[in-house]
Amino acid sequence: MDLEAVKKYLEKKGETSSLVDGLPARFLEPLIMNALRVDLIEPGRVVCSMKIPPRLLNAGNSLHGGATAALVDVVGSAAIPSVGYSVSSTGVSVEINVSYLDAAYAHEEIEIEARALRVGKAIAVISVEFRKKKTGKIFAQGRHTKFLPTASKL
Amino acid sequence: MDLEAVKKYLEKKGETSSLVDGLPARFLEPLIMNALRVDLIEPGRVVCSMKIPPRLLNAGNSLHGGATAALVDVVGSAAIPSVGYSVSSTGVSVEINVSYLDAAYAHEEIEIEARALRVGKAIAVISVEFRKKKTGKIFAQGRHTKFLPTASKL
Amino acid sequence: MDLEAVKKYLEKKGETSSLVDGLPARFLEPLIMNALRVDLIEPGRVVCSMKIPPRLLNAGNSLHGGATAALVDVVGSAAIPSVGYSVSSTGVSVEINVSYLDAAYAHEEIEIEARALRVGKAIAVISVEFRKKKTGKIFAQGRHTKFLPTASKL
Amino acid sequence: MDLEAVKKYLEKKGETSSLVDGLPARFLEPLIMNALRVDLIEPGRVVCSMKIPPRLLNAGNSLHGGATAALVDVVGSAAIPSVGYSVSSTGVSVEINVSYLDAAYAHEEIEIEARALRVGKAIAVISVEFRKKKTGKIFAQGRHTKFLPTASKL
Repeated sequence: MDLEAVKKYLEKKGETSSLVDGLPARFLEPLIMNALRVDLIEPGRVVCSMKIPPRLLNAGNSLHGGATAALVDVVGSAAIPSVGYSVSSTGVSVEINVSYLDAAYAHEEIEIEARALRVGKAIAVISVEFRKKKTGKIFAQGRHTKFLPTASKL
Repeated sequence: MDLEAVKKYLEKKGETSSLVDGLPARFLEPLIMNALRVDLIEPGRVVCSMKIPPRLLNAGNSLHGGATAALVDVVGSAAIPSVGYSVSSTGVSVEINVSYLDAAYAHEEIEIEARALRVGKAIAVISVEFRKKKTGKIFAQGRHTKFLPTASKL
Repeated sequence: MDLEAVKKYLEKKGETSSLVDGLPARFLEPLIMNALRVDLIEPGRVVCSMKIPPRLLNAGNSLHGGATAALVDVVGSAAIPSVGYSVSSTGVSVEINVSYLDAAYAHEEIEIEARALRVGKAIAVISVEFRKKKTGKIFAQGRHTKFLPTASKL
Repeated sequence: MDLEAVKKYLEKKGETSSLVDGLPARFLEPLIMNALRVDLIEPGRVVCSMKIPPRLLNAGNSLHGGATAALVDVVGSAAIPSVGYSVSSTGVSVEINVSYLDAAYAHEEIEIEARALRVGKAIAVISVEFRKKKTGKIFAQGRHTKFLPTASKL
């Protein structure tokens, strides 16, 4: 049992540390979204593409599970204005879940499809599916539940 | 319905775009972990602290839901070597889920506690709780399920 | 705050109590499955129909959330032998999650579709969607993750 | 691939079929709750006990995953009136998730603890933990998210 190694891993500060400390506010979204392209938007459905950038890899050189979860949040949220809500009020996250089915590697072209299962007066639920573009194979599936507080005031 | 605004939001490339493109590989972990401090490690339990850095905020100026999910992944994984597995083999994510209970703002001190509910031969399940240090109030709770492939070979 | 009422609700034993105590072993499956009809089975996909029986309603007279979750378990599990595993070894549940999108009422015809997202050597993940037959509207969506211990021995 | 066996399993109607068809409305709750005893109720926390009855077993002779999920629903809901809401309005389920950590067998004494993580104006989230009484070991953990529509009217 090597508790010291766990501590070192969690607190590791490499050469990137000074770079990280200098980053602007709200940097997580540019980090994960900079490579996103929108292929299709229609009411209740958003499809994006991305060529997996090396900056989003994990130690196993595949798309980081945390990046996948963050993309469920961001792309899932975009499905709400697609059914008529203002882009500035996509609600508050209540729950996100993701199943990881397979690894996706650097430079692979992937497709992220968000589909609104329900956008009600107060609750929206969006399914988000990650596929490899070459084979169509699903490699992750998530769901995003949001509370729409401003909508409930209308 | 303003589909163009949705597209613009998803593909927005601000002044940070060139900065993002120049980032090194595997940058998500330094981004979310650079502010982490380990308070306690014992078998099956890891407690970390973090002063929420502005770079991890969302548009509402609270901790980004994607950052919370990524922290469930990273801190949850650290609970596996704490029960005796090698730090280099914390398994493969099968599922992550997070409930968002409250907002946490920039510079708030938070505590992240990962507790192994089960670390079996093939499956590990870890609960990850996010609390505000000042009040002890839970503001997010997640669960992380991992498959331990190397363990199953033993 | 009426803690006594909560206790009474949880321990309520009505006229059905003696009936319940006399039930045979493993009665949950007949209770929820007796009305199921199989419409289609193909590799990785199972579609069933059910006319919601009054015995599965909740106090609001719609399909009980616990019944929906139990159906995710049972119908989801059936998608595993559909890709070639023995019916007698559909693995062990690791995780079930369900989003409830709308109410479905007694005598409504519903369709339950289980689709294997992945059936690997050790882990299977199945998506289970509940639709109203009349409108095609999704009223619940779940995911079921199973560990396939016998398969991993092969 | 034995699709016929899958169909037979899903549509199996044994000797219990006529018994099932004659059951009264809303029978799922008595089925899973009849053995429940309330050990403790305090604001935001409900602890129940149950000796696992054979009627709730699965084919592997352990507590059915569907029964566990249904208990997350029912016992989790009871934590909402414990913080002051009327027993008659515990809201509408938005999401239930359960991690299955270990098997629990017939006649084992178990403890089910529901803890309200948040009961807000519109959203309640409850954590539900299943432990074996003899050892204190957690064998399942779930979360239940509910929408409180009547509360939002106040």
